[in-house]
Parts: sequence; structure tokens; C-alpha cells
Amino acid sequence: MAGEFDLIDRIRARTVARGDVVLGIGDDAALLQPPAGMQLVVAMDALNAGIHFPHDTAPADIGWKALAVNLSDLAAMGATPAWCTLSLSLPEPDAAWVDAFLDGFDALARAHAVALVGGDTTRGPLSVCVTVFGFVAPGRALCRAAARVGDDIWVSGTPGDAAAALAQWRAGGTRDPVLRGRLDRPTPRVALGLRLAGLAHAAIDISDGLLADLAHVCGASGVGAEIDVDALPVSDALHAAAPDPDTRRARQASGGDDYELCFTAPAAAQHAIVDAAAGASTRVTRIGRIVEGDAVDARTGDAAAWRPASGGYRHFQD
Amino acid sequence: MAGEFDLIDRIRARTVARGDVVLGIGDDAALLQPPAGMQLVVAMDALNAGIHFPHDTAPADIGWKALAVNLSDLAAMGATPAWCTLSLSLPEPDAAWVDAFLDGFDALARAHAVALVGGDTTRGPLSVCVTVFGFVAPGRALCRAAARVGDDIWVSGTPGDAAAALAQWRAGGTRDPVLRGRLDRPTPRVALGLRLAGLAHAAIDISDGLLADLAHVCGASGVGAEIDVDALPVSDALHAAAPDPDTRRARQASGGDDYELCFTAPAAAQHAIVDAAAGASTRVTRIGRIVEGDAVDARTGDAAAWRPASGGYRHFQD
Repeated sequence: MAGEFDLIDRIRARTVARGDVVLGIGDDAALLQPPAGMQLVVAMDALNAGIHFPHDTAPADIGWKALAVNLSDLAAMGATPAWCTLSLSLPEPDAAWVDAFLDGFDALARAHAVALVGGDTTRGPLSVCVTVFGFVAPGRALCRAAARVGDDIWVSGTPGDAAAALAQWRAGGTRDPVLRGRLDRPTPRVALGLRLAGLAHAAIDISDGLLADLAHVCGASGVGAEIDVDALPVSDALHAAAPDPDTRRARQASGGDDYELCFTAPAAAQHAIVDAAAGASTRVTRIGRIVEGDAVDARTGDAAAWRPASGGYRHFQD
Repeated sequence: MAGEFDLIDRIRARTVARGDVVLGIGDDAALLQPPAGMQLVVAMDALNAGIHFPHDTAPADIGWKALAVNLSDLAAMGATPAWCTLSLSLPEPDAAWVDAFLDGFDALARAHAVALVGGDTTRGPLSVCVTVFGFVAPGRALCRAAARVGDDIWVSGTPGDAAAALAQWRAGGTRDPVLRGRLDRPTPRVALGLRLAGLAHAAIDISDGLLADLAHVCGASGVGAEIDVDALPVSDALHAAAPDPDTRRARQASGGDDYELCFTAPAAAQHAIVDAAAGASTRVTRIGRIVEGDAVDARTGDAAAWRPASGGYRHFQD
């Protein structure tokens, strides 16, 4: 069986090359050359087996998702990804598992020219922790505190798909591969985030659920929000999986793990937003507006006010 | 019981303030301003309960050690620490545990003016993953590949203490608090590393054991090494815990978790090294020299050649 150093060699052999990596995997630390005048953008997220992904998730999908959830944080800041580090805890040093994990991790790393520059492999319960590094020009980052009264609220993609996949998995019945793909291989909206920087006001990625994450934006910005839940785009797969409107609305408004972007922008920027989304080949939909107050008000087209049963997903339940 | 967001608030409330942190904990990612012209130095290490520390380790000691092992990597590069991120997996959201953990983590962070700028808290088996960021001027980093034939080999502190503590813990008998302190609260040799940058050639921190880590330096540099094991300084506590010379030598030469620095420097730099160590208030000892070849030869003063039973510690055993 392979030892720790063999695993590190396997990982190093597949790393993306970048000119700004002075010294990558193999020393006590990595040496990196940040571009002059740019701010460094850093996010770190861990995925634990059974908590953040079902135990039957394919290793390649775990690799993809571990990087995707972190790139999604850079996307929500409007940053250009550059480097990452990886800490991998495995119950045993399984080279075949690591190779499969790297198939997914590297596919996404190459798509975004992200170099893996360091980290460690350790024995322990299956867990993947990634730190990502990107750049943004000063003053152009999309921050949660930047929403303004009168802003339109937008969302990318079709939120709710990942939650529908998780519900199917929990129920143990029919499982739609399209929905499962949205849970296991979320698409970080990096291209969209880059085009929104300097154009949109606030942004956040949807990991805890649209309403919960929008509430974070409102809290940080000192504003409220009105959302038309029925304005949220519905994927065909979600429509088929959740024909009951209230179930579907719950998935869309409160389901986590979508890693779509929710962002706010001045009403005058509507055409520019649509152009930016087209340039990023990403669907965006206007779903509400920022108002005075401190509440997130979720309404439907045919009811006075629809309220989700839960304010969102928490890793730690009270 | 506190939820995830309460834990994050507790962590944020105790963070060190730095002027180069544009945006810290609380957004999708941190925004940081690296100093112009410097290289960024990044290391990431995870500690898992039962693997990297005994289950009975105090939370404050876990907090200290999680940061210490990472700062030790920066020290081994000769870098100035600046920022860190923290991913904390806990079986349950225990606010008292987190407060105690932060007591140790913050004590070390403040000592080195390191700002915690992001990360996450998740549910899962107890595990702590830290990424640290520092700076070094181009060309001044201490790299493993820089050892040259004829260099002196030096070590800081008194290696073997941590391994002796672990042996006592495993045996379940008398436990020396001095040794246990060296296991639980290692001192990252940051001040020494900073003074060695531009003076020493190669450096590494001793996490896997002196001989194993020195072998990494030799492998990266394409050289061999001769070590006089009996030249290694012995702490009073280690002397009392391991009166048998061979047991003591095994702790010193092959015991991990000391986080002392092993470094090489030209013979002409001996006085400068001693001055640098005095300036950093850190004991250093010359223990051998770099030679041609590819082997690490460990000798004693009174025997032809003493060989350790094991080449060092691995998290993953073959």
C-alpha cells in the first residue's frame, strides 16, 4: 500500500503549472509571487464525509466539489482564481482512491488554471479541506455589505436542484442523475463573478439556501429584501422531482449546496447585467429588490405571503 | 447550545487586528493586501484527534499546536507570519470548548501578530486545519534544496522531548509535565528562521524526526549528511525519562513532533549563526556536516555506527 509520500508524489505529478508559483509542493511551504497592486482573496472550506456529501459519493465528485465550493467563494467576490492548497484526511492511504479524487479535482483546477501548491495528507476520517487564493483589483470586490435600497436582486442558474437531489437520496427511491450531478458537481460561477465585479453591488454564493444567504447580505448591508419565489427559474429536473409547488418552493428558497450566485445591482444596470451573464454563458434571473428594513420577505405570485418552514440550512443544528 | 454562526462570532471577536486585512472574517472570502515586492509563503497542516494529538489533550493546547505546527513551516522558510485561516470540525458546537481552544490559538497568534482572516466551522470528527501566510523577500527563503557539500548541520533546541512525552503517554505511567508541554505546546522557531534567512542555506522543521527530515533536505539537495547523534543536546527532562542511551538516541534522532529547525550553513558562517541564535534567544547546536552522496549517516561518539530502528515517523504506515 502506498505511504504518505507516495500520495504526495501522485498529487504533485498532476498539478497545474503557473509562472507565479516560485516553489510549489515539496518544501515546508509554498513560495508565490502575487501580482503587483492586486488584493489577495482567500477562502477556506472543508467537506466532511456524511455531513457535506453522502457516503456513496464517487471520489472524483468529492474532488470536484471540494474545489468547487471554494472557487464559488472567489466567484462571489469577483476574484480571479490562482492557487490552492489541499489537506486530505483518509482512513487509509488508498492510491486508487486518491487517483480518482484527483480526476475530479484536477478537471476543475485545469478549467480555472488553479495550481495546487501545498497542503498535507493525513490519516483520519475522510475529510477534505481546501484553501483557495485569487486576486481582485482594489475597490472591485463584491462584498456582502454593499447592497443598497433600490437594488435589483438576481440569482444565477436554477436554485433548488441540489436540495432536490439530497431529498431523493435521503428518501432512497428514484434518483435523477441530472439533479445528483448538480449536488455532486456544482459549477462555480467564476466567469460570471469576474464580469459582475465593478458592476454589481453585493454578492454571495448560495451554500446555506437562498433566503438564508440573502439574509446574510441584508444583515451586513443594513437593508431588507423582497423576493418573488415564483420568479425563481425552475429546472425541468426539479419540476419533475417536486411537482408540489410548496415542496418545490422550499427547495428553491431554502435548499443549500447550489453554489449559484445571489447578487444585487442598481436597476440602471439591468442591461449590463444581462450582457455580463451572456458573456459568461450563465443564466441569470431578476427575483426581487432590496428595500428598507431588516427582513427578507419571500412572496409568491398567487398567495399573500409564502413563508419557508426553515430559514435555511445549518451545519450545526441548534 | 450555540450554532455555527455563534461560534464564528466568538472566533471573530478575538482576532488580531492588522492594517493589511482589508476584509476579514464574515464575507465569502477575505481581502488581504500583500506588501509590494515580497513573495507570499503559504503552508497548510491539519491535526486530527487521536492521530496528531492524544485524545486527552486540553483544547487550549490543541489550539496552540494547530497554529504552532503551521508557523513552524513558515519559520523553516525564514518567513514573517501575517495571516491564517482556520477550519474547525467539531462533533458538536460546544462554545466552552471553542473558547478554551481559542485561549491557546490566540495566545500564539498574538505573540506573532497573526490575524485570523477566515475559514469555517463544520460538524464532524474533531479536526483542526490551518493555513498560514507569511512574506519573504525574493531570494531569501530557506529551501530544502539549498544544502551544499561542506555545510555545517545545525539543530535548534533539544529534539526528542516530544517523542519522550508521547512514549510516556502510550506507556500510561509517570508523565513529566515538562516533556508533555514540549509535545502539546511546541515553540515555532520564527525568530530564529527570520535571522537565518540570507545566512543559512537549507532548513526544515522537525516534524517526522531529525533523521527523516534531514533525509528530505539531502534528497532535495542531492547530497548526503553525517550526524553525530551524541552531539545532540539533551534536555534534563529527556535525560531523566530515557536514561538508557539507545532509547534516548532513538527519541532524539527519530522522534517527531519537536518542531525544532534543522538547517545547514557554510562553515564560515559559524559565528554569525551563533549570533543569530543569541539574537533569537534560541539554543542552536552544530551536529554534523553535509557530504557528497545520498545517505544520512548517524554516528555516536563511542560506537562505530549507531543506526536508528526506524527512518522516522509517517502518518501513513506502509
